[in-house]
Amino acid sequence: MSMIDTLIEALQVLPGVGPKSAQRMALHLLLRERQAGIQLSQALQAAMDNVRQCNLCRNLTEHPVCGLCRDNRRDEGLLCVVESPADILAIEQAGGYRGYYFVLNGRLSPLDGIGPEQLGMDQLVDRVAALQPAELILATNPTVEGEATAHYIGQLVAGQVAKISRIAHGVPLGGEIEYTDGGTLTHALQGRRDLDMHS
Amino acid sequence: MSMIDTLIEALQVLPGVGPKSAQRMALHLLLRERQAGIQLSQALQAAMDNVRQCNLCRNLTEHPVCGLCRDNRRDEGLLCVVESPADILAIEQAGGYRGYYFVLNGRLSPLDGIGPEQLGMDQLVDRVAALQPAELILATNPTVEGEATAHYIGQLVAGQVAKISRIAHGVPLGGEIEYTDGGTLTHALQGRRDLDMHS
Repeated sequence: MSMIDTLIEALQVLPGVGPKSAQRMALHLLLRERQAGIQLSQALQAAMDNVRQCNLCRNLTEHPVCGLCRDNRRDEGLLCVVESPADILAIEQAGGYRGYYFVLNGRLSPLDGIGPEQLGMDQLVDRVAALQPAELILATNPTVEGEATAHYIGQLVAGQVAKISRIAHGVPLGGEIEYTDGGTLTHALQGRRDLDMHS
Repeated sequence: MSMIDTLIEALQVLPGVGPKSAQRMALHLLLRERQAGIQLSQALQAAMDNVRQCNLCRNLTEHPVCGLCRDNRRDEGLLCVVESPADILAIEQAGGYRGYYFVLNGRLSPLDGIGPEQLGMDQLVDRVAALQPAELILATNPTVEGEATAHYIGQLVAGQVAKISRIAHGVPLGGEIEYTDGGTLTHALQGRRDLDMHS
């Protein structure tokens, strides 16, 4: 197999990249972006070799403890549990949240053999004990498995944290009530809040 | 900048990959496809370092002469001129053509400073002189610049090749006449062929 064919095949490991786009990518790099291609190769090598889980929060990082956990300007009173590092990126990009995180890297799924051990629940208990946050926010996905995982964690740390909360489910901003599914609407109505007339 | 951010930025050099998909790709590799990520890094490095233009046809290859030019089972009577290595891949995947190729790696475009030298016209003349094909097929794209390039090459090698042809333009297979543009329809009508009643 030629080096180009090897590259086209290797590129197809990327999500959403099939044979045609892999071919387009390979030729684009070879014909127009050699230097960037070498930089991409080096960035891949460095990340694959060095990025591991943060010892405190299980987020991805090349350091023993990740930048978020090392940042002592964050709010020590808040710990937010998410399923994936992508959720942290989304919450950070949204802004507004300034507490710490814990990443499960998955959700409870007995059929797939994913139990509390695979999700680092022991580490979570240790982290809660060390940080002693005033509030633990459960930000697992609003799926059956995400709900079950949130429920499990709630029970697990019930005695250790004063306040345990779950992110709100409801109609997304820019969404239309007419086209919102029934489960979401039920949550949106149950979770209704008093209108603040003074702000 | 963390290694993950570096990787996410480096991935955006790929065509069609923005910040969101780059992030998805990076996390996918880090969480689920480490080994494949390393293989991709190595394939990139090898290709970027070693792939150059074929000395005979200017196609991309890691050898001095590419596999297609070295394949002596191909039809020496045919030489097909294309704009890009991607065109060779498309024609090879379609099957049916068994001659040799020559890649311009561009098209005549005086405004962009792309003249005959940049397209290896000297090499094309040498290749025609060495191969002495019975027919030269001009398979540049059916654009204004592609047509101009085909016309230029036609004049350049007029004395050296008995037959110089241009790929057919017309209604694509599966296309609908109703929705075909006027220029294509004009070509399709002008290029009409007798219906073979005996096959």
